[in-house]
Amino acid sequence: MNALEELAESFSRLPGIGKKSAMRIANSMLKTDQYFLERFAKQLVELHARIKPCSICGAYTENDPCPICSDTMRERHLICIVEQPQDVNTIENSGEYKGLFHVLGGLISPLDGIGPDQLSIAKLLERINSENISEVIIATNPTVEGDTTALYLQQVLHSKFEGIKVSRLASGLPVGGDLEYADKLTLARSFRGRISL
Amino acid sequence: MNALEELAESFSRLPGIGKKSAMRIANSMLKTDQYFLERFAKQLVELHARIKPCSICGAYTENDPCPICSDTMRERHLICIVEQPQDVNTIENSGEYKGLFHVLGGLISPLDGIGPDQLSIAKLLERINSENISEVIIATNPTVEGDTTALYLQQVLHSKFEGIKVSRLASGLPVGGDLEYADKLTLARSFRGRISL
Repeated sequence: MNALEELAESFSRLPGIGKKSAMRIANSMLKTDQYFLERFAKQLVELHARIKPCSICGAYTENDPCPICSDTMRERHLICIVEQPQDVNTIENSGEYKGLFHVLGGLISPLDGIGPDQLSIAKLLERINSENISEVIIATNPTVEGDTTALYLQQVLHSKFEGIKVSRLASGLPVGGDLEYADKLTLARSFRGRISL
Repeated sequence: MNALEELAESFSRLPGIGKKSAMRIANSMLKTDQYFLERFAKQLVELHARIKPCSICGAYTENDPCPICSDTMRERHLICIVEQPQDVNTIENSGEYKGLFHVLGGLISPLDGIGPDQLSIAKLLERINSENISEVIIATNPTVEGDTTALYLQQVLHSKFEGIKVSRLASGLPVGGDLEYADKLTLARSFRGRISL
């Protein structure tokens, strides 16, 4: 393997990039200037040292605690529970939510041997208690594991904190979508979750 | 921008990778080990120094002349003309061709101000003369620029080298394709280039 093929091999390990795309990208790198390559290389090497999970919420951050956890202007009685650190960015980008976050670090999945103890749930309960959280929004994916985790959290939260508000993101037809192309499960959910007008 | 967003920005500059995929890839890099990142970074930084165009044919190579130009077992009377260095790999991978290559470095395109003088044509003619080439296969893309370049080359070659065999790759329906989905131009070409059985 020459240097070009070695680079293509590295690109082909990235998620969503096949062998042909990897070779195409490696070839395109030959046309970029050395400055871009050096900067790109530096970003890769320094990534682990610069980005860490926030010690409070678990989101990826350069400064600990993260900008969201240390922002006093956010709605600090409200917490949104997500599966992975990158879900925090996705929700932040929507501009729809101004509360705090908590990253579980996975979902309950008995088949993969992941139970509640492997997730950041004890810490969540401690935060709800010490930070005076009055409302929890569960934003796990609408999958079997996401549903299981949401159900488990709902039961634990209601049993430990009297009067706490717990909700989950609505699931149904995507905006701009088409009834014709909706799968049966999504359609069934959108019926069950229908909104009175 | 934090380190993660900076890395995603670099990934989003690669061909075929959009903003969302770039962020997804950058996040996945947080889960890889430092060893992979260091090796990847080294490959990027060293690329320009290690890979150069072959001084004879123009293909990308670590050693000059490239393995194909220095291979005495290949059919050295036969030369295949391609547009870009990566086309050499594509043809090599097909296993169909055992001759030499010549990279033009572009195609004739009056709209982009690229004429025959900007391409590696003088060198091609010199090679055909000094290396005793008796057959030329033109493998430019079946596009307007590829057709123009092929036509130009054919005229120049026939005028300069008496008795030289010049051909061009067949254009028509892709194998496994479907008549129903073939565009008009491809279908027209497959009629004109039909093969008697």
